Amino acid sequence: MSMSHDHSDFVVIGGVAAGPKTAATLARRLPTARITLFQREERISYGTCGMPYFASGDVNSFEELTHTSYGVPRTPSFFKRTKGFDVVTRAEVINIDRTTKTLTVNNLETGETFEHGYGKLVLATGSGPNVPPFPVADSPAIRFFTRPDDAIAFRQMAQTGKIGSALIVGGGFIGCEVAEAAGSLWGIEVTLVEMEPQLLPRVLDPEMAAMVRAELIHQDVTVKTGTRIQGIELDADGNPVAKVKDGDDICVDYVFLCMGVHPEVSLAAKAGLTIGTFGGLVVNKHMQTSDPDIYAGGDCVESTHRLTGKPLYMPMGSLANRHGRVIAENLAGTPACFPEVVGTFLVKVFNANVGTVGLSEQAARRDGLPVASVWGTFPDKPDFYPEGQSVSLKMVYNPETGDLLGLQAIGLGDICRRIDVFATFLHNRATVEDLLDFEHGYAPPYSEALDPLHHLAGMARARKAGMDFLSPGTEIAGLGENVVLLDVRENDEVASEPWHVDRPVINIPLDDLRERAGELDRDREIVIICKRGPRSYQAALILKSAGFSNVRVMGGGVTGLAY
Amino acid sequence: MSMSHDHSDFVVIGGVAAGPKTAATLARRLPTARITLFQREERISYGTCGMPYFASGDVNSFEELTHTSYGVPRTPSFFKRTKGFDVVTRAEVINIDRTTKTLTVNNLETGETFEHGYGKLVLATGSGPNVPPFPVADSPAIRFFTRPDDAIAFRQMAQTGKIGSALIVGGGFIGCEVAEAAGSLWGIEVTLVEMEPQLLPRVLDPEMAAMVRAELIHQDVTVKTGTRIQGIELDADGNPVAKVKDGDDICVDYVFLCMGVHPEVSLAAKAGLTIGTFGGLVVNKHMQTSDPDIYAGGDCVESTHRLTGKPLYMPMGSLANRHGRVIAENLAGTPACFPEVVGTFLVKVFNANVGTVGLSEQAARRDGLPVASVWGTFPDKPDFYPEGQSVSLKMVYNPETGDLLGLQAIGLGDICRRIDVFATFLHNRATVEDLLDFEHGYAPPYSEALDPLHHLAGMARARKAGMDFLSPGTEIAGLGENVVLLDVRENDEVASEPWHVDRPVINIPLDDLRERAGELDRDREIVIICKRGPRSYQAALILKSAGFSNVRVMGGGVTGLAY
Repeated sequence: MSMSHDHSDFVVIGGVAAGPKTAATLARRLPTARITLFQREERISYGTCGMPYFASGDVNSFEELTHTSYGVPRTPSFFKRTKGFDVVTRAEVINIDRTTKTLTVNNLETGETFEHGYGKLVLATGSGPNVPPFPVADSPAIRFFTRPDDAIAFRQMAQTGKIGSALIVGGGFIGCEVAEAAGSLWGIEVTLVEMEPQLLPRVLDPEMAAMVRAELIHQDVTVKTGTRIQGIELDADGNPVAKVKDGDDICVDYVFLCMGVHPEVSLAAKAGLTIGTFGGLVVNKHMQTSDPDIYAGGDCVESTHRLTGKPLYMPMGSLANRHGRVIAENLAGTPACFPEVVGTFLVKVFNANVGTVGLSEQAARRDGLPVASVWGTFPDKPDFYPEGQSVSLKMVYNPETGDLLGLQAIGLGDICRRIDVFATFLHNRATVEDLLDFEHGYAPPYSEALDPLHHLAGMARARKAGMDFLSPGTEIAGLGENVVLLDVRENDEVASEPWHVDRPVINIPLDDLRERAGELDRDREIVIICKRGPRSYQAALILKSAGFSNVRVMGGGVTGLAY
Repeated sequence: MSMSHDHSDFVVIGGVAAGPKTAATLARRLPTARITLFQREERISYGTCGMPYFASGDVNSFEELTHTSYGVPRTPSFFKRTKGFDVVTRAEVINIDRTTKTLTVNNLETGETFEHGYGKLVLATGSGPNVPPFPVADSPAIRFFTRPDDAIAFRQMAQTGKIGSALIVGGGFIGCEVAEAAGSLWGIEVTLVEMEPQLLPRVLDPEMAAMVRAELIHQDVTVKTGTRIQGIELDADGNPVAKVKDGDDICVDYVFLCMGVHPEVSLAAKAGLTIGTFGGLVVNKHMQTSDPDIYAGGDCVESTHRLTGKPLYMPMGSLANRHGRVIAENLAGTPACFPEVVGTFLVKVFNANVGTVGLSEQAARRDGLPVASVWGTFPDKPDFYPEGQSVSLKMVYNPETGDLLGLQAIGLGDICRRIDVFATFLHNRATVEDLLDFEHGYAPPYSEALDPLHHLAGMARARKAGMDFLSPGTEIAGLGENVVLLDVRENDEVASEPWHVDRPVINIPLDDLRERAGELDRDREIVIICKRGPRSYQAALILKSAGFSNVRVMGGGVTGLAY
């Protein structure tokens, strides 16, 4: 190994999350190792995921995202003095010579290139924004939302009152977060356009995505799903105009292009490292690329899904940090493995807390898995306790094996607990029956005596025993004309929060149903609804034991529908 | 089997949680079965755990605790019409003849007794308050806090302004909840007395209990631990006076006796059923007592601890509801098991969220387990995100096997997620290494990129590698005089939130430590503190690599101490 000045035992390419985490952990493990991190930008490490909250004004200055929690800026000097490794900024690695283990680095300040040797190399080159498949005019008012400069540019325009209206192209996580950022503090009139027929199509099923849509609409966002943009031009005043296929032009002051991200792997590809189906670097469980001397982590790699065994692209700061630790452990000579992922996501969309983990019903079907679902709406605290909120949950599972497949959650209430716990169950390849053994924390300020996960497990069991649950997304118009709609809530509940459907609904409160079952026609199919679900279920049992054979429960109740 | 009127296929003794849950589930499974529930009181089912919130005024009327979520009172008629089983109130079962399978029931309205046969019997006789081991005067102003009448009586006196001061005897869960109930809305001057040297002695270690104490004191509650009451008398005006051993009398307007509860098993014991070490009914995993025709659930049974295999008394509404389902399944002929418990508890103490799961360090030591602990204080959201709060955590584990043993949490931030997830890990007998694979939900409004559980696992690994963590409860005065105290926070942090200790503290900000390490004496032991812990850890590594051998980190930082 050459001992010249331009050589490190370990070189890391890329800042933000995975790179600095790898270098810092490695420096702790091997305090005498020479570790160098090359970063293209001036900024080394910052909370990318915090950008929407800087854009929204929730975070005062961008510096807060780049500083440590105790206010120290994360400069090269900080990393050297505190973390014990070298950082070279404005340095773009433009070539990896794997034979001689030499990097060619472009000094972006001077334009000069230099060479730097490595013993082991770590690629943390991150992701870049997906480029629209349509022409986009060049304008400072049309931007991606992936780099600090994007957030800074928007915020500057927004706080000087130059943006009255904005278009967001893409209804994924970032699109939904940006809708809140633009709409809430700045009062910008927001239109969100998604090509797919629903929001968050990668992780939510349509009926759950409809609840996200409802919250956006409730917050005065115009949502256009199944809408294809063909180009973004500029009008005579230089303002963006989106040309919509089979639709009216959308004229706004600002356009966010939020069509997802892809792994940045051009350097790795040029070096001949193996690239996977999603365009990310393929790594083994030790986070090693196809070259054993080169590791990779963060947004530039693909993950493996624990339930399907298939590759998955999951660009998340949480994974990136965990990648960093695993890479550093391996580099330090203590073998460590990164597990298969279950796909845990949280996103705040205005007041709605949204979370998913595992496979959606759509995704599971695409994978050819047998799939069944149950839905429920639950108070996140006992009803008697003040300030309780609802959460609507959908659980997806394999009806043949009972294996859990996924959970989707949305509501004003606490969803994080359920998503985190379900992630742990999925990681352990648990079944519906295992959920019944969940010993959740219980006290009225925090939870009910039975957790929503217990109820969902009970519904899955009931389904197995023949109870039929309908999706909250069921189109009532699509039900046969012969179907009877039965609302088993109390009369005052029906009056104050009616079930908005275009056909007659029979109201028999649950308590009266045993006596009044004779009013219903045994030969017709009956669809039952209540506030959240449990009463419909009880009503279905009452009707079944009274000889009704064709009875179905509307999952999640009126609350689930109306969210 | 006799077909006379006074016979049921299934008889349940006891209301509230386990009894009605068993009967309702059974009625769903076996709609034609004859099921009778005998309940001594007029009220059948109510949220016992909600009583502190009725007492506090958070819940308007006691009826809210006895009604369904949709406002229907849980009367015998409700259970018959909606749930499909018979309830007889004011009916006390006074004898079980197991040979003839006949109960003797006392009609508390008429005083007459009658007989009632059973095929299978379920005991859900609940718990009763522990009686003080000292004499207590008879007064309406001295009460337990276990029955609805207790809460109603207190609230009536409180809202008519008759209670200016109150004494709570017992610093367990109920005692802490009642302290808030009495202190917050009613502004009652509260004194809480606990015989043990700390609050919540069954589930918290002393240094974590000290944080609960700090919150109570912050809320103007007078807390006296290690204080023994010898009797409660009445003064000349009829007001309670507590006689304190080696202390001053405590004169108040009202006394709550909150010294825990014990299983109500007199009926079962008389019938010769096996009683366990904690005085509860012994049941097998099917919730069957020593008589295979008699099942039992709820507060009258003992549980088995998953980590120790030993019996445990855990009177919780959450377990009672899950017992009910398991009993009903078994009675319906579909064998079901109730798992060993991990002991999950949550309690709100004014603004502090407190949770524990598994074994405390004290409990693990008592069980003879090898035990180690790590502590950390964490923001529950990224620091840049508004409205974040801190949580202080202590993780207990077996340093030889890495097996997780327990987690204790306290703070203004979200602790429920961590407790619930840790409960799942404990149920799966997971290790420190398994925590590193936890795929938590991440988005800035909800969490940091790394979960506190990842950090705690990292600390346990560091401990194994030789890093020494001190308990936040460490008495500085007890450290040798030769020990150097080193604060590695920034100067402005030290100025605004000093570390209150009675000896000199050296302040060297972390970033300067590599350069200024020479100012410290290599031969002396150094104890390092920062705001929450991570910087001390980094500092310890810097000092170790600079040749300091005797370095320790103060777990949880100043925030953990100062809570």
